[in-house]
Amino acid sequence: MRVLAKDIARAAADSGKVEAAGWVHRIRDMGGVNFVVLRDRSGLVQLVFNEKPVDETGTPVTLESVITVKGKAALNPKAPGGAEIQVESLLCLSRAEPDLPFQVNGDVSKMGLETILDNRILSIRNPKIRAIFSVQAVIIEAFSAYLRSKDFTEIKTSKLVWGGTEGGTELFEVEYFDRKVCLAQSPQFYKEALVAAGMERVFEVAPAYRAEKHDTPRHLNEYVSLDVEMGFIESETDLIDLERGLLAYIFGEVARKNAAELAMWNASVPEADAVEKAPVIGYEDAVKLASDMSAKAGGGRIFDITPEAERFLCEWSMERHGVQLVFVNEFPRRYRPFYTFPSDANRTMSFDALFRGLEITTGGRRLHSYKAFVETLPRFGLELENMQNYAALLRSGCPPHGGFAIGCERLTARILGLANVKEASLFPRDRKRVEP
Amino acid sequence: MRVLAKDIARAAADSGKVEAAGWVHRIRDMGGVNFVVLRDRSGLVQLVFNEKPVDETGTPVTLESVITVKGKAALNPKAPGGAEIQVESLLCLSRAEPDLPFQVNGDVSKMGLETILDNRILSIRNPKIRAIFSVQAVIIEAFSAYLRSKDFTEIKTSKLVWGGTEGGTELFEVEYFDRKVCLAQSPQFYKEALVAAGMERVFEVAPAYRAEKHDTPRHLNEYVSLDVEMGFIESETDLIDLERGLLAYIFGEVARKNAAELAMWNASVPEADAVEKAPVIGYEDAVKLASDMSAKAGGGRIFDITPEAERFLCEWSMERHGVQLVFVNEFPRRYRPFYTFPSDANRTMSFDALFRGLEITTGGRRLHSYKAFVETLPRFGLELENMQNYAALLRSGCPPHGGFAIGCERLTARILGLANVKEASLFPRDRKRVEP
Repeated sequence: MRVLAKDIARAAADSGKVEAAGWVHRIRDMGGVNFVVLRDRSGLVQLVFNEKPVDETGTPVTLESVITVKGKAALNPKAPGGAEIQVESLLCLSRAEPDLPFQVNGDVSKMGLETILDNRILSIRNPKIRAIFSVQAVIIEAFSAYLRSKDFTEIKTSKLVWGGTEGGTELFEVEYFDRKVCLAQSPQFYKEALVAAGMERVFEVAPAYRAEKHDTPRHLNEYVSLDVEMGFIESETDLIDLERGLLAYIFGEVARKNAAELAMWNASVPEADAVEKAPVIGYEDAVKLASDMSAKAGGGRIFDITPEAERFLCEWSMERHGVQLVFVNEFPRRYRPFYTFPSDANRTMSFDALFRGLEITTGGRRLHSYKAFVETLPRFGLELENMQNYAALLRSGCPPHGGFAIGCERLTARILGLANVKEASLFPRDRKRVEP
Repeated sequence: MRVLAKDIARAAADSGKVEAAGWVHRIRDMGGVNFVVLRDRSGLVQLVFNEKPVDETGTPVTLESVITVKGKAALNPKAPGGAEIQVESLLCLSRAEPDLPFQVNGDVSKMGLETILDNRILSIRNPKIRAIFSVQAVIIEAFSAYLRSKDFTEIKTSKLVWGGTEGGTELFEVEYFDRKVCLAQSPQFYKEALVAAGMERVFEVAPAYRAEKHDTPRHLNEYVSLDVEMGFIESETDLIDLERGLLAYIFGEVARKNAAELAMWNASVPEADAVEKAPVIGYEDAVKLASDMSAKAGGGRIFDITPEAERFLCEWSMERHGVQLVFVNEFPRRYRPFYTFPSDANRTMSFDALFRGLEITTGGRRLHSYKAFVETLPRFGLELENMQNYAALLRSGCPPHGGFAIGCERLTARILGLANVKEASLFPRDRKRVEP
């Protein structure tokens, strides 16, 4: 019966006889005695050999080979985890080539991003890199669990759509039998349609696609979108309240379940009461604040919520409110898609959430009146005849509603302090990269 | 404070003053008194008006309009749910056009599939149709929860891939900047890569794409694949055992959380001990059994696990083992992809799960030896130089492993007894249909 690395210390206290299996993470020849560090899904454990570690054919084991060993577990305060296995027999299940192109047990801080991504199937083996995706799995689990507890229904909508919800640019085209369709930029229309269909509260975890040509540390051409939409709201404030509760829960679950992973990255998450204190600031005030901070720091004026402004605003929020989380609302109509609900002639009931210097969420209340929709279209250069699905939706009885989306990789990256959002995607896609 | 339809009876026992909101599901003029059935996310509740129900402008309310009402909740054994609201005021939040193209409160059994799908944003409003997706949400939740409890990590992998894992046909092409990529048919390579990367146990819930031209009641061009992969297995039996536990848990959760939805469809799920009794039968025996049953029923011989054979085998399993679930293993090598682990010269460690007459799962152990992989490729007309990602994976230390995938829409459809798998997709895609 196999024992996981994390349970070897416990096994040592029992009978001591154990079988372990995993990857050869490190090999050290200390003269008379040889150490192998074995890696499995639960962590690392030290194996002790009285001679050179060889497999059943007498061949020396290589790094990253998959082996099973039998032996005696013993407590050893000097070993990682406080225990080790005195190996009695070794079987090699899969021999790794000795010339692997990537050093799995290396120091991540000394590896370049391109090297990490070019060797993705090896680099994920590095415990610190794998930790990113343990955190991400907990984010997705917590996002879903919190929303279910608030009576939201999980939906899965099509990613093959007849056109973009936010205009015609930045779309990938798909050859679909004898026609062309697009990859969905977001489930925007579908989540609104399902709220209006009586589900009232829906969420989706699914890929989203943007054919953006630029390569920045904050963009992915394919990302995991954590989407939320709810009916019977009054303004974006209802959504900001929902996101506060949601983020506080996600942070709490990450703190509880990913303590080891956070420690590897020397990271922490905000406490629930800090999330509660995150300020809400109007767009114009936010731009002015960021601009003033920039000027004070000797930089130029700022005229929009630029990446630089996002950093200034989180800095300000940290100083004034003790948390690097800030909600910016009242965005101008010209910066928001047609379906955004206006609060007056120029402003909208929409918001962004900025976390540790990066926008992680865009959201807002949506138009639910057919009349307002028809009046709005020309302002955005859109024609009613091309918007028949939206028109049908709004003519069929649609409650006041709104929603938001959290970029899963962005949230992961900001929790762990990753410099580039690509590090938080298992198999990131950019203009040059579609493999592996 | 809004009260949901399901809570009106309780509110009647309290103060009685309530506010309710939702969609106008039915309007009945009974002479002196008028009834409106209001629909919200929780169910239906009867509203009682002493005159014709009109909105705040005096306009009669229309079916599917979104309204809020204030009034007094009262117990009434004759009302659905045992309570009703004596309405004092009504506000219309969104007026539905009176000429909607689909009768939301109609009888689903009398609606054609094309009508239902052509009017998807209205047909989902029908409580019986919406019930399908309440069940589906629980299936996804239970699938994920069970696997997490067994130490599986949730993954999200790219759907834009450089080629198919199962050969070059049936792929949708995507215009990806200045090249072409494909939509993933399955996360096969990625889930194997992540098991081999040390995650050991992974699952994914994500869309999968097949460019199949035929239109059958069992195929979708885009479906939700519930994928599982695990390391350190010995044969497909380990996977069948895992799927038994998984299905028993999913069925149990659906029974517990979807009792009302199952009742609407006059459906039930197998008990856990019935799942335990589901037989495992080898491919050759299965084909012979189905063929004999066909001959006995006056039909022709059967030479493969055809849709007809799937029905016969489930019938046999019901008669002999008390459950319409059967695992067929030992598939011939020629019917399985190259990465399938052979058990002898002609057979493989692979299996299908058939449930209520339909294949819902394909799975098996995979090749984990580079040598076996290289020897296998020519047999499948594949060339090593085109398989460099797989080659790298198998040369880097890869444990024995295997997995399976459950078609989410198929499982949903078989639980509820839906005739066509498209009914279990919110926005199904087929050769002709990409809207809404």
